[in-house]
Amino acid sequence: MKFNQFLLTSMMASAALFDLSAEPYRRTLTSVDQGLNEVSATITPQTAQVPATAPWSITKTRLHGGKQEGVDLITINNGRLQLSIIPTRGMSLFRVQLGEIKLGWESSVKEIVHPQFMNLSSRGGLGWLEGFNEFMVRCGVEYAGHPGKDKFINNVGEEAEMDITLHGKIGNIPASEVEVIVDRTPPYTLRVRGRVDERMFYGPKLELWTEIATEPSSNEFQIRDTLRNHGAYDQEYQVIYHANYGPPLLEAGSKFVGAVSRVTPFNAHAAKSTAQYSDYSGPVLGFVEQVYCLYPVPDAQGRGHVMLHNARSDRGIAMSFDTATLPFFTLWKNTNAREEGYVTGLEPGTGFPYNRRRERLAGRVPKLPPGQSRTFSLGFKILEDATAVTEASARIRKLQPNPPQLDSGPTTPE
Amino acid sequence: MKFNQFLLTSMMASAALFDLSAEPYRRTLTSVDQGLNEVSATITPQTAQVPATAPWSITKTRLHGGKQEGVDLITINNGRLQLSIIPTRGMSLFRVQLGEIKLGWESSVKEIVHPQFMNLSSRGGLGWLEGFNEFMVRCGVEYAGHPGKDKFINNVGEEAEMDITLHGKIGNIPASEVEVIVDRTPPYTLRVRGRVDERMFYGPKLELWTEIATEPSSNEFQIRDTLRNHGAYDQEYQVIYHANYGPPLLEAGSKFVGAVSRVTPFNAHAAKSTAQYSDYSGPVLGFVEQVYCLYPVPDAQGRGHVMLHNARSDRGIAMSFDTATLPFFTLWKNTNAREEGYVTGLEPGTGFPYNRRRERLAGRVPKLPPGQSRTFSLGFKILEDATAVTEASARIRKLQPNPPQLDSGPTTPE
Amino acid sequence: MKFNQFLLTSMMASAALFDLSAEPYRRTLTSVDQGLNEVSATITPQTAQVPATAPWSITKTRLHGGKQEGVDLITINNGRLQLSIIPTRGMSLFRVQLGEIKLGWESSVKEIVHPQFMNLSSRGGLGWLEGFNEFMVRCGVEYAGHPGKDKFINNVGEEAEMDITLHGKIGNIPASEVEVIVDRTPPYTLRVRGRVDERMFYGPKLELWTEIATEPSSNEFQIRDTLRNHGAYDQEYQVIYHANYGPPLLEAGSKFVGAVSRVTPFNAHAAKSTAQYSDYSGPVLGFVEQVYCLYPVPDAQGRGHVMLHNARSDRGIAMSFDTATLPFFTLWKNTNAREEGYVTGLEPGTGFPYNRRRERLAGRVPKLPPGQSRTFSLGFKILEDATAVTEASARIRKLQPNPPQLDSGPTTPE
Repeated sequence: MKFNQFLLTSMMASAALFDLSAEPYRRTLTSVDQGLNEVSATITPQTAQVPATAPWSITKTRLHGGKQEGVDLITINNGRLQLSIIPTRGMSLFRVQLGEIKLGWESSVKEIVHPQFMNLSSRGGLGWLEGFNEFMVRCGVEYAGHPGKDKFINNVGEEAEMDITLHGKIGNIPASEVEVIVDRTPPYTLRVRGRVDERMFYGPKLELWTEIATEPSSNEFQIRDTLRNHGAYDQEYQVIYHANYGPPLLEAGSKFVGAVSRVTPFNAHAAKSTAQYSDYSGPVLGFVEQVYCLYPVPDAQGRGHVMLHNARSDRGIAMSFDTATLPFFTLWKNTNAREEGYVTGLEPGTGFPYNRRRERLAGRVPKLPPGQSRTFSLGFKILEDATAVTEASARIRKLQPNPPQLDSGPTTPE
Repeated sequence: MKFNQFLLTSMMASAALFDLSAEPYRRTLTSVDQGLNEVSATITPQTAQVPATAPWSITKTRLHGGKQEGVDLITINNGRLQLSIIPTRGMSLFRVQLGEIKLGWESSVKEIVHPQFMNLSSRGGLGWLEGFNEFMVRCGVEYAGHPGKDKFINNVGEEAEMDITLHGKIGNIPASEVEVIVDRTPPYTLRVRGRVDERMFYGPKLELWTEIATEPSSNEFQIRDTLRNHGAYDQEYQVIYHANYGPPLLEAGSKFVGAVSRVTPFNAHAAKSTAQYSDYSGPVLGFVEQVYCLYPVPDAQGRGHVMLHNARSDRGIAMSFDTATLPFFTLWKNTNAREEGYVTGLEPGTGFPYNRRRERLAGRVPKLPPGQSRTFSLGFKILEDATAVTEASARIRKLQPNPPQLDSGPTTPE
Repeated sequence: MKFNQFLLTSMMASAALFDLSAEPYRRTLTSVDQGLNEVSATITPQTAQVPATAPWSITKTRLHGGKQEGVDLITINNGRLQLSIIPTRGMSLFRVQLGEIKLGWESSVKEIVHPQFMNLSSRGGLGWLEGFNEFMVRCGVEYAGHPGKDKFINNVGEEAEMDITLHGKIGNIPASEVEVIVDRTPPYTLRVRGRVDERMFYGPKLELWTEIATEPSSNEFQIRDTLRNHGAYDQEYQVIYHANYGPPLLEAGSKFVGAVSRVTPFNAHAAKSTAQYSDYSGPVLGFVEQVYCLYPVPDAQGRGHVMLHNARSDRGIAMSFDTATLPFFTLWKNTNAREEGYVTGLEPGTGFPYNRRRERLAGRVPKLPPGQSRTFSLGFKILEDATAVTEASARIRKLQPNPPQLDSGPTTPE
């Protein structure tokens, strides 16, 4: 009796601590509606009242000094990988680290630059480059790609012109709402969600709800973003997931592997090296960026698959993405000197990074009807050994057994 | 004796609390000179040591999250109406609320945007629209109106050219000095004053002291701003008081009523609907803004009078303004879909919102001699019932019994 | 014995307090690496554990209100002169004061403007003027001088074009690392060092370590800056030390004295007054700036020497600079009305303030090879009486006994 009562009490306490039927744990870190922006926070299994299946934590800190004054950083440590998110810069991913494997790169921009110090219009629309150092930055969402004039027919049927700035604004807009969600049922998924608004009067009314998710002890993470048009008119949009890799995944002999049917050089310069599009050299002084436009071949679930692995084929990253909303893929090779940013970009997108005017001519600028939304889903898996690299590579090769068509030059109209 | 002594003591205490001969209560909330910017504050009758003729309060708070991070907001609750002021954005009025009557509108810009996130030069000088959601924002003061190149003869007699950005800078400059003043004599007027400087080297040295005043329990408030030229040369200036109304005052069947002698369409598009300039439709998908240039007929005191009332003529807003310094009036009709910002602007100004180059050609860009100032005075009265609407309307109609001259097209030189 | 023991104890305590063999005292005030930015700090002889040879202090405060919200200010009081440094604005010197002698001027910009409120691209690239009020602001370092298009051949051999904004970015970049260093050996020199990074992707990777040094009770201070190229390519750079003086050193009858071999007017307007290049008038309404390009004659140590003194020749400032890295000198005369900024600039530089395109044509845009650095050294001595002025003047005249060549017009190619 006594013992049973103890058991019962114990079970009740346990249920209180780890209520499996409970709603997920939620913690708001930033909220425009509540006038809230936490300076620091720490969330652990104990905080979230879930079993400590791994020593995970989610922490928030505020950076200081130089151009990073006031930047917030949220770090998910899932017990195995560490993933840092920048709410102040559109929920970009700054770095992902798993042991010695780093997703990210060493840009010549060393600080995480607060938008207060950015001027996207500077340098003929190249100001974005003054803050570019993230592992993964979203380009968009009203426009992405190269700067320049965009001439177009506006909502009221008039010819209009506007200045496009490189890769748009979303990566330099602070998140309006940020929340941490921890599932209280296995696998106790950890999520950080953030809403980034790209709104203006006489302009886009776009809302992007971003979500980064990972499971305790996992070597994978997922991005699941939903873009909604709150305007009354069809709204053009462009999104490119600009995921950037330097050493140790990028080195002389690294390989890109992708299930793609066709490879088109971005310009005449890239066209000189299309045959070597999937090969990487070490840092080369004077290297001029080479960009290739790739056409993914999706799997049965509609997902595209690409990967990058190192020279010894024992470390890599596999990426997948939903081609229904991200049908195109850009490969950016910038194997320049290390001091200049030795890096390659693997970039699923709604299109390629030409100026919007050219993308529209090529039929690659989608529209969102009023009130509607699109979801962009990406998966990242870190490949930690030769077996993982081989398996991932084989899966991709199976999806696209034949070599892709290599175009001799760019095909996008001027 | 004892009783008299009690009375005396009581009177003395009362005099200490509510010293009718005393100077007004003053509280500095922001001061560049003192290096002060209060994060929060609350002022009540007790704080100000005045009789609590109404449960009024003046509060200051700081907003957080998204693009509103660090924005200060001051709210005057006069016991009847609530009026919010944004010191961080040039002392603009964000909202005025009296019961169910709201002065303001639902812009597609949802946050009160901190100037750190603004770039007025972006989008060909339309960057101002990324922060536009106030009930009343001042346009100016070096320049207001449409963006574009302004060619002119500068102070030293040389031909010069500069980029004008939409509606100028003053609405995106944080106030340098902010003070609350409460009169200690009836009617115990509440004032919030703020100094906004528009200064540069080789440019304007303009100081704008803004003042918002209201009385406890009143349904009225006044703006009284003084613009001073601290430079050594005559200084051009432009000011437009961009007061914006959405529902419930704006709806299908709402009417603009103004004592005006003439109505000129701003452009060919507006010219198609000049005859209906004072009528409002409900939200119309694809509506293109219609702008009308109106010429006020002042009353004997030199004040212009306009009003807007709802379809049932039982709610409205009456505005008056000193035509000596604000001789022109712009009516902006933007009865677009609600999601796009269903709104009308009633805008007394020093001129119309053409680019400054055109305004100068039309003789509507005044100059301030060195050391001199101009005061802009506006009154707002909320009309809470049919009687109030009828009376206000009758007063305006008496001032301008005949219909205004309707011009067939724009008259401002290109 | 007892007495000796007391002495010994005393000496030991003294050694502990003022350890002459010790490393300099160091205090980090800002550090991107540590995520640190002190809001306030005070350092005195006691803090630094040095003998109080003068009642010196180094303090840090944060400013509030208006456009100076969040600006940090560091003030060195060496016991005789007060020198204020703005880490938030590239380590510029705001003011230097010694009794009634002020180094600095009264700009029409009254606040110390935080970079968050700056837009260098505004007004056709003249935005820099919205924050210009320092005693000494560095112009540079990727580019300095007049705004406009710069056409050039870029690193990869292609013709490129970019917008140059007036006087570059460095004066509006917050310092990433700031430290106070106090020597623990005589003369117990006080130093404030700050690192300002001008970095971007596909752009400069320039690091500027600034240093301001002064000795307790001295009327002198030194600037010693080191610019390093962290990129992989040769990097063009331009630096102008824009030191600005108003009253009391500038007045009707003030004189510029410089060891210079040649004086070239900057433009046709300045050419009308070249003969009077070294004379100053009082404030003149309608005065148009006159700029002269001067060619310093260095002393045996390679240092250039210039000075400015007042009408009575009893107060002045002597400046020296290393001509190996700062071979040119610009004299900016702007004896405009006081309200417009009555001021003269004495400006050692790597070149003159023409647009970089023209400076390049004239061979005045140096390059920094990868990994290399250049050090810029300047000395300032306040001349407090007639003797000091006479001696400084005589030394300069001895260095350049003959009058300089006066060019009849500008010589820099268009």
